[in-house]
Amino acid sequence: MSFDLEQTKRQSEINEIIKSYLPKEEGYYKSVIEAMNYSISAGGKRIRPMLMLETFRLFRGEYTDILHPFMAAIEMIHTYSLVHDDLPALDNDEYRRGRKTTHIEYGEAMAILAGDGLLTLAFETAAGAYEKIDEKALDALNIYRRIMRAYKVLSMKAGIHGMIGGQVIDIEFVGKSVTKERLDMMYLLKTGGLFEASMMIGAILAGASAEEVDITRSIAGDIGLAFQIKDDILDITSSDIILGKPVRSDEKNDKPTYVAIMDLEQAKEEVANVTDRAKKAYESLPYENEFLKELIIKLITREK
Amino acid sequence: MSFDLEQTKRQSEINEIIKSYLPKEEGYYKSVIEAMNYSISAGGKRIRPMLMLETFRLFRGEYTDILHPFMAAIEMIHTYSLVHDDLPALDNDEYRRGRKTTHIEYGEAMAILAGDGLLTLAFETAAGAYEKIDEKALDALNIYRRIMRAYKVLSMKAGIHGMIGGQVIDIEFVGKSVTKERLDMMYLLKTGGLFEASMMIGAILAGASAEEVDITRSIAGDIGLAFQIKDDILDITSSDIILGKPVRSDEKNDKPTYVAIMDLEQAKEEVANVTDRAKKAYESLPYENEFLKELIIKLITREK
Repeated sequence: MSFDLEQTKRQSEINEIIKSYLPKEEGYYKSVIEAMNYSISAGGKRIRPMLMLETFRLFRGEYTDILHPFMAAIEMIHTYSLVHDDLPALDNDEYRRGRKTTHIEYGEAMAILAGDGLLTLAFETAAGAYEKIDEKALDALNIYRRIMRAYKVLSMKAGIHGMIGGQVIDIEFVGKSVTKERLDMMYLLKTGGLFEASMMIGAILAGASAEEVDITRSIAGDIGLAFQIKDDILDITSSDIILGKPVRSDEKNDKPTYVAIMDLEQAKEEVANVTDRAKKAYESLPYENEFLKELIIKLITREK
Repeated sequence: MSFDLEQTKRQSEINEIIKSYLPKEEGYYKSVIEAMNYSISAGGKRIRPMLMLETFRLFRGEYTDILHPFMAAIEMIHTYSLVHDDLPALDNDEYRRGRKTTHIEYGEAMAILAGDGLLTLAFETAAGAYEKIDEKALDALNIYRRIMRAYKVLSMKAGIHGMIGGQVIDIEFVGKSVTKERLDMMYLLKTGGLFEASMMIGAILAGASAEEVDITRSIAGDIGLAFQIKDDILDITSSDIILGKPVRSDEKNDKPTYVAIMDLEQAKEEVANVTDRAKKAYESLPYENEFLKELIIKLITREK
């Protein structure tokens, strides 16, 4: 089976897992649940739960029961961040993946609450992992410990010292000149934050050592960084049709980008350097997951 | 010492605990941290962490190290809900406790992100409790279990089936006629949700039985309900000066209230009935905490 076909198949399996953790649309407050489910069902490649699952497999993880709630949780957090990012006070976007954004479809108040609801549900869902522990098992204490560490990583990387910190830098830099150092920090936090959480949690729940988790973190951060620099390049070099969104939108929105602080060739070289660093780190691990490797390469070398 | 003085003293102690979990205002994204700290430092009576602590004491809890992160967390969640509630798309309030609301002081985008940041930080802070466990202790597994249960309660009661659900009902009922059943549900979720979480977590972390936790939940729900009905009554009977905010604001905002669906005497009787039910439940517990009892009475019989 080709990699693309295999990816689509695994994506469907992940969709089923996520779906099983979504709330039923009932009760006095079902409108907010509809808005939440609308947002998370908008499609998307489910890259974060996929990275989590494949990293878990890389480290020969066994208890998928405790992994699945975290896979759903990371996608809920990613989705909430999009819902809030799209709001008029932030990016003011009316469409995402060809559908109306949540506040256009359900109104601004409901979009704010739906985002809050998804973020909170993410932590509730992940907390449910502990109910899957066989408390009579000899290593029960060990599994509790893994879940709590995963929980800490999830909240840290989604928070101000992770994704939210990146969003704040993004907002504050609009219209301002920016250094490479700050841009790297923004990308590492904004996109890298949840990539790091995904791969670290996969590793932690599989029982990887602290050193292995740290290597995983650095790989994920580099993927996030390379992914975003590539995004800046594609915004200039691609066409609207291939990219599926208007090109040169960063320039129009006066957003700081890599191609604003260096020329295109230098930016491409940066991607190559970061990719190389991630590749070396990956190869230093004593495990192999061919699918994960191909997924990472695809994320970085994508043309759309 | 009078109860009021004692309460002020304990409130200061709680403020110190909360403060110790607030992030430092530094780094590229310090603006959002400033907005978060501004919001949570706006004062407030710290009723939720106080209820948590006193319920913990009621059940003779021992490990305050694992309680403190949850006390800070519940106040962070309460604060984030106020920051988002005040936004133009929701209640559109410019002042709270005599200070500018967060979006007036820092702008709407930053207020949205500061709210998200506080909510996420709440879960990160609470997750930190596990680092306080003495893993060599014989009951380590038991303590892990308590923390995970507390975590689940915190996220559930703050989410769509708790506080957020109540906020959604609140939004949807503006300008509409409402039944007592729906109003009760709104109050039970919107205010009762975090009250329940506070007292249940205090009980869980202290090692209370499932039955005791459930009694605690029903007491807390009733406190929330009585508190809100009392709020509706005071909105009619009090004066601006005593209440510290404009009276009859519910009527002006076309919000459904108890005094809109029944007369004042009936509403007062409702408070008395709910209070009586909570009192009986409290007395069924084989423990005593005089301060907690007085705090509960004060919350319900307040005149402002």
